[in-house]
Amino acid sequence: MSSSTLLLVLDLVGIAVFALSGGLVGVEKKLDIFGVLAIAATSALGGGIIRDVLLGLAPPATFTDARYLFVPLVCGVFVFYVHPAVARLHKPLIVLDAAGLGLFAVAGAKKALDAGLNAPASVGIGMLTAIGGGVLRDLLVSEIPTVLHREIYATAAVAGAIVVVVGDSLDLNSTAIVVVGAIVTFAIRVISKWRGWSAPRPA
Amino acid sequence: MSSSTLLLVLDLVGIAVFALSGGLVGVEKKLDIFGVLAIAATSALGGGIIRDVLLGLAPPATFTDARYLFVPLVCGVFVFYVHPAVARLHKPLIVLDAAGLGLFAVAGAKKALDAGLNAPASVGIGMLTAIGGGVLRDLLVSEIPTVLHREIYATAAVAGAIVVVVGDSLDLNSTAIVVVGAIVTFAIRVISKWRGWSAPRPA
Amino acid sequence: MSSSTLLLVLDLVGIAVFALSGGLVGVEKKLDIFGVLAIAATSALGGGIIRDVLLGLAPPATFTDARYLFVPLVCGVFVFYVHPAVARLHKPLIVLDAAGLGLFAVAGAKKALDAGLNAPASVGIGMLTAIGGGVLRDLLVSEIPTVLHREIYATAAVAGAIVVVVGDSLDLNSTAIVVVGAIVTFAIRVISKWRGWSAPRPA
Repeated sequence: MSSSTLLLVLDLVGIAVFALSGGLVGVEKKLDIFGVLAIAATSALGGGIIRDVLLGLAPPATFTDARYLFVPLVCGVFVFYVHPAVARLHKPLIVLDAAGLGLFAVAGAKKALDAGLNAPASVGIGMLTAIGGGVLRDLLVSEIPTVLHREIYATAAVAGAIVVVVGDSLDLNSTAIVVVGAIVTFAIRVISKWRGWSAPRPA
Repeated sequence: MSSSTLLLVLDLVGIAVFALSGGLVGVEKKLDIFGVLAIAATSALGGGIIRDVLLGLAPPATFTDARYLFVPLVCGVFVFYVHPAVARLHKPLIVLDAAGLGLFAVAGAKKALDAGLNAPASVGIGMLTAIGGGVLRDLLVSEIPTVLHREIYATAAVAGAIVVVVGDSLDLNSTAIVVVGAIVTFAIRVISKWRGWSAPRPA
Repeated sequence: MSSSTLLLVLDLVGIAVFALSGGLVGVEKKLDIFGVLAIAATSALGGGIIRDVLLGLAPPATFTDARYLFVPLVCGVFVFYVHPAVARLHKPLIVLDAAGLGLFAVAGAKKALDAGLNAPASVGIGMLTAIGGGVLRDLLVSEIPTVLHREIYATAAVAGAIVVVVGDSLDLNSTAIVVVGAIVTFAIRVISKWRGWSAPRPA
């Protein structure tokens, strides 16, 4: 498998996982089948769309490759009909979601650097790419986004994006820094979830 | 009346209807006059703005023709002062809203095809154009968007957008497919409302 | 201090004030530190990002000057740790917020005119620039935006934007009309708050 094929597969895996977890939220909220598909697609594609709109890359990549639309719709239909089975996959889904988080964070930061953004802005875009879909998902079901008040999630995405931005400024091999960045995000997310860590709250 | 004049009139009728129904939601939620105008304008113009931002057509058409701003503001003021009369028009408003839905769905899909998007993405843009204003309206009043859990609404928009995309791929006359697409959306919406149909929910 | 330095300082003051008030909302809602920083940054930068996306100016100015990101983050950390002291500054914060509102309204309207938009659209963009961050802030904490149902806030922004647009159409000195516009917004906001005015509600 070539490097770009690998990246595409990883990207679609991230999209699929975000679509499955988004679809489950839609099922919990008793949405109808259109609602479940819409939440699945928004969760999976929202971060990338926000990234591309902010970078001025229109239309967003999501709308130029039909696979990006079909994967979340298939996942949404799957969740709609077999949601108890998907919900039982709770732990594997968290691990896969952490992988998606890492992939989206580093891909977003890399794309921002390539578009000429400065270092802090590229970290911001990487983070928004990773958490954007989940934030839109929570807004659509009228809840305060989970990422704002629970667990270590956005912080893990920020860490991976920082790896990419710092590695880039040191002229390190770009494949290496993307891989290391994704692993850093993944590890922080999985370990913090496993140990029950959460970010500090106001006194 | 020329074809483009007819399209403009139909577009403004769609905007007016969405503004009236949006303004009524603002009145129900006890917003002040600014809030009612803001909800009316968002409901009427949000879908088109989302469409143009995603297609990279900036500034959105809404901001280049002053009539697109004045129509929802006039409708908003009208609803604010005579809302009991407008609310009594419940049934005609549903029919007009279905017409607006059809017009926005086909116009969005056509504009996406003209911008070079692939078929499924063009259907997606058509649907977002038609439902986007209503989704933003519901988010602004802190409710789960109606379209995600009640009645047949987005599905009707998708059907009309599919007509446009399929007709385009078959090189059919573009005026004809736009008209047929809008009628398909309108008919599905009106009949499903009249018969009380709704989309399936999770088991 | 040169004119452009003055404008930059005023812009950063506006951003800082919106970040402080946004951060306080995050603290009240018991968000964690990431959530408080995210709300502070969204409140401060959201209006400018919406403005630039709608004007087709990508990436938004926010992402091209690192100071625009650091100011709200520093303010967010500050609020997180010393929020009781910040909350006691209630009255000065309202006055500073009114100044930020005026600055954002006139800067937004001016940027829209410079981008070639018509007069009513430029007023709309000025208003969205001024209130956009606060609307996003309220959506993120799952509340109906304050601006839609309480006090005189958006109306003050509209008044300042109208001054800029009318002054521009009369070819008046552009620095003068920006200053007068900001003062008009500031005065309407402070006086209406002081006198307890609010916009009319539906009968």
